Amino acid sequence: MATTLNATATGRGVDAAAAAARRVIAALVRAGDISGADMTAVADRLNAIADELEAAAPGLRERLVNMWRGDGTTRHDPVTGPENPLAPPLQYTGRPDGSIEAQVTLDLPYQGPPSCVHGGVSALLLDHTLGVANAWSGPSGMTAELTLRYHHPTPLFEPLTVTGRQVAVNGSKIRAVGSISAGDRTCVTAEGLFIAKHPPRPR
Amino acid sequence: MATTLNATATGRGVDAAAAAARRVIAALVRAGDISGADMTAVADRLNAIADELEAAAPGLRERLVNMWRGDGTTRHDPVTGPENPLAPPLQYTGRPDGSIEAQVTLDLPYQGPPSCVHGGVSALLLDHTLGVANAWSGPSGMTAELTLRYHHPTPLFEPLTVTGRQVAVNGSKIRAVGSISAGDRTCVTAEGLFIAKHPPRPR
Repeated sequence: MATTLNATATGRGVDAAAAAARRVIAALVRAGDISGADMTAVADRLNAIADELEAAAPGLRERLVNMWRGDGTTRHDPVTGPENPLAPPLQYTGRPDGSIEAQVTLDLPYQGPPSCVHGGVSALLLDHTLGVANAWSGPSGMTAELTLRYHHPTPLFEPLTVTGRQVAVNGSKIRAVGSISAGDRTCVTAEGLFIAKHPPRPR
Repeated sequence: MATTLNATATGRGVDAAAAAARRVIAALVRAGDISGADMTAVADRLNAIADELEAAAPGLRERLVNMWRGDGTTRHDPVTGPENPLAPPLQYTGRPDGSIEAQVTLDLPYQGPPSCVHGGVSALLLDHTLGVANAWSGPSGMTAELTLRYHHPTPLFEPLTVTGRQVAVNGSKIRAVGSISAGDRTCVTAEGLFIAKHPPRPR
């Protein structure tokens, strides 16, 4: 029996707007300066949307309290958050053996070498994945040390499998490992040391 | 004498549109579902922009050749690229001693723990910084191994200094180190092993 571990997009409200923003991000990187689009007009329209959003925005403190309340914590992060246009977003499944898994296909905004995922983007996805794996199977905490090993280039435009699992808990020290693979090829592996502490939530 | 190491935003064309998209991203994460904005209308307007950009888009292969030509490589990456709305973006300065440095202040889209930078985002910035430091002072290549150590939480909303420098070259093996600091506090340090190879550019 698999369990969905993070917030899923509702398809409404800010989730719909963030999904649309993801399309704009990908389309802009695809366009560059060789598109037939009128980029001055696009910039004007995006700035008008930003002006309106900023005028209607809650205060920063109010939003911080709101976004860290209850189940909200996975709604806004830069890896899984349906409210965050930076997030691909990943959707994790937890397995009874304590491991977790997500599938994702990345496009040009996440590029490092030609047609490959940026090594730092792989690091971002794996740091987050190890943290979620900790929360799924035992105590969780903040990253103290993270080591990434890059075995093969990670391709853009192809389904990737991102996995993680907690491997040891020793007092407040937590160890977890993870990987990114494309088909049967392991592209990146990670091991992390986490400390079981959580900064206070804004109130 | 300091040297600017990556493409700077022109303020026109796709750079202006990407800068506006960054404002939209930050405003959406600030808004969440507690904003007074009409998110259904925002989603419709963003989808309309995406539709137009996609309709006017160059072919993927054409764009790949274009974006990897000449000086174009730093225009689109997810850390410095003025054409990439995911990039904060960082702007590196190279120093005669071989080190490089960038200043950046990060907002809610890059959040991990409350009011702190996501550990994976720090990893993304440092992986990229070590790569740029290699290119600045000697041979560069692809990341083989990267270790991050998290000493203190990295704050959002405050100026951060990101530094990197190459420390050793031994045949095709290149070593570089870097850090992220806030004021006089070192938050994250990184050391990386890079291999002096470059995948072929699309033609």
